[in-house]
Amino acid sequence: MSQTLDAAALDQLFRTARTQNAFTDQPVTDEELHALYELLKWGPTAANGTPARFVFVKSPEAKARLKPALSDNNTGKSMAAPVTVIVAHDLDFHEQLPVLFPHADAKAWFDGPQEARVEAAFRNGTLQGAYLILAARALGLDAGPMSGFDNAKVDEAFFAGTSIRSNFLVNLGHGDPAGVFPRLPRLSFDDAARIA
Amino acid sequence: MSQTLDAAALDQLFRTARTQNAFTDQPVTDEELHALYELLKWGPTAANGTPARFVFVKSPEAKARLKPALSDNNTGKSMAAPVTVIVAHDLDFHEQLPVLFPHADAKAWFDGPQEARVEAAFRNGTLQGAYLILAARALGLDAGPMSGFDNAKVDEAFFAGTSIRSNFLVNLGHGDPAGVFPRLPRLSFDDAARIA
Repeated sequence: MSQTLDAAALDQLFRTARTQNAFTDQPVTDEELHALYELLKWGPTAANGTPARFVFVKSPEAKARLKPALSDNNTGKSMAAPVTVIVAHDLDFHEQLPVLFPHADAKAWFDGPQEARVEAAFRNGTLQGAYLILAARALGLDAGPMSGFDNAKVDEAFFAGTSIRSNFLVNLGHGDPAGVFPRLPRLSFDDAARIA
Repeated sequence: MSQTLDAAALDQLFRTARTQNAFTDQPVTDEELHALYELLKWGPTAANGTPARFVFVKSPEAKARLKPALSDNNTGKSMAAPVTVIVAHDLDFHEQLPVLFPHADAKAWFDGPQEARVEAAFRNGTLQGAYLILAARALGLDAGPMSGFDNAKVDEAFFAGTSIRSNFLVNLGHGDPAGVFPRLPRLSFDDAARIA
């Protein structure tokens, strides 16, 4: 039976982890990005559909392609981050279900117009984006997730002619504490939850 | 600087963690549910909006209200689980932003018709649902997330007359290994990701 992780692990994952706005010069290696995927990939999704697709934007050329899509307040920090991950999802994720969910004809559950798959792709791709944030923290990396960008421009620059759509962005690296904002409050249990 | 968590923690969070379909008789206490919220609440959301709302369905009466909304294959296991969490989100989450994001008029970014807030509420509420799954595992609980249910029926039974909408469900408890299905494959790095 599982036990509670130790206090240091809970801090690193949740309690003292912070959204990072500045990063040190320490790079994120391709090996670390592979290890990150190999960890996050195990997180659960509906019918094991795993619709998320990830672009790890790392080279100056790819950063330059991303730049025009970013909001002003996200541009400087993203250009300076070792890696900016485009968390996206494939609206035709169901084409992989014969491999991913082989014991039933799960592809048939999602066949038809693409519009009918948007919600499942968005929900489960977003879950996988959260798994990426927490897997990064588990591996000793820091994350800076962002929604402030032009999705259509990112799709045109990175996913033109495909069924893949951008969702949100996550800067990755080793955080510089000087860039962290003061901790913001959270809703109390009673304001956000109830036991019925 | 953060280090990689130890192998046992990575296993518990991701690598050997499994979606549970059956649970032992060991209850989940109200104190554990409070501890779960107090951990997951720290996960990042856009503009600290934290739109997720959680109903921990635990009493026989509340389980009975949930039951008619469940798909056949999710009914038995959910009725037997110690807790079924309704992961929902408040479409009017922006009303809390003067408290949650006090240094700017973030509420104004989201004012206007509710339709314009649906995407942000769904994305960030889903992120918080993933934080709940991983926080549960971090605290030694097991999770069984599900999408197979009638959202409109759940909304009518639990959120009538409010701006809260159901997203997905998560059974919580201590998993019975006998109920776990064989591990399904995942996409390779090259099929789901690229370094640009």
